[in-house]
Amino acid sequence: MTRLFVTNIKNIFCFFAVRCHKKIIRNYVVDNMRNILSSPFMDMALQQAIDAAARGEVPVGAVLVDYRTQQVLATAGNRVEELQDATAHAEMLVMRMVRSRFLTHADLYVTLEPCPMCAAAISFARIRRLYFGAEDPKGGGVEHGCRVFQQTTCHHRPEVYGGVAADFAAGLLQKFFREKR
Amino acid sequence: MTRLFVTNIKNIFCFFAVRCHKKIIRNYVVDNMRNILSSPFMDMALQQAIDAAARGEVPVGAVLVDYRTQQVLATAGNRVEELQDATAHAEMLVMRMVRSRFLTHADLYVTLEPCPMCAAAISFARIRRLYFGAEDPKGGGVEHGCRVFQQTTCHHRPEVYGGVAADFAAGLLQKFFREKR
Repeated sequence: MTRLFVTNIKNIFCFFAVRCHKKIIRNYVVDNMRNILSSPFMDMALQQAIDAAARGEVPVGAVLVDYRTQQVLATAGNRVEELQDATAHAEMLVMRMVRSRFLTHADLYVTLEPCPMCAAAISFARIRRLYFGAEDPKGGGVEHGCRVFQQTTCHHRPEVYGGVAADFAAGLLQKFFREKR
Repeated sequence: MTRLFVTNIKNIFCFFAVRCHKKIIRNYVVDNMRNILSSPFMDMALQQAIDAAARGEVPVGAVLVDYRTQQVLATAGNRVEELQDATAHAEMLVMRMVRSRFLTHADLYVTLEPCPMCAAAISFARIRRLYFGAEDPKGGGVEHGCRVFQQTTCHHRPEVYGGVAADFAAGLLQKFFREKR
């Protein structure tokens, strides 16, 4: 009985130690990512966001990458105004462009935290990793609001890395909305 | 002070009375809707769902209606497999077909409770009313899971009427998945 108790305590301790360790590693990775000004794929997404702003769209860009070959599968910026389509967010456009129902071989780079619509679509498409730039406390659905991937009804959760080139991405958005006012 | 207290109590009582009354009316409407086998627009959505099943798609159909003129703006069934597009749900397709960013003049009829992706898109497009058929406890995002419209970050909430021709819509889905097994 005492042995069982000790084993259980050990297991519980191990469980928390592993969790804690994972968190430390994750925070380390994320902190390092924040320190990186950007990555080549996030740079491409940022260029798409700049192009979107030039078209009068909210400056958000996305790039879909095959992580096995590092090949770019699709790039897009927001086209909500141009297509007169409320669903034409950058993330949705890159996913549609690839014409593959399952994107298990793909990583998505997007300059802003995806909204609940895009987050749910990312889950449906079974994208492996999501790298996003600026956080979106008002409209985001990953770290804010719905927190789509944290729902028990979410059947696929990608690995999420936020804050990549966040300052530049947020700066683009701030500039866009300041000029619009 | 006593007067203020009485007024407050009165206000609180009124508030709950109105809420309760609204709930009774809503339940009455919903119950009556359940009793109606269908409505002309939900019939069209069900036909789209039947057609989708014939194409090997999950049988969900949607119809978008201009509520001012009662004119059908778009009809669609799921085309996820056909288009190899995880976002090609019936609701998304009808919204895209209309080519209007804001659909404040439109009501949406769909045979299944929308998922979080479609619910968020409905909110972005500012659709006035959502009528849906069967509930979806595993994948829904309106009455289950994310409950997109109940989030504080949701900027437009349509009026929602669930359970319209629910038995027929649910029957179609059950038949489809039974035959697939």
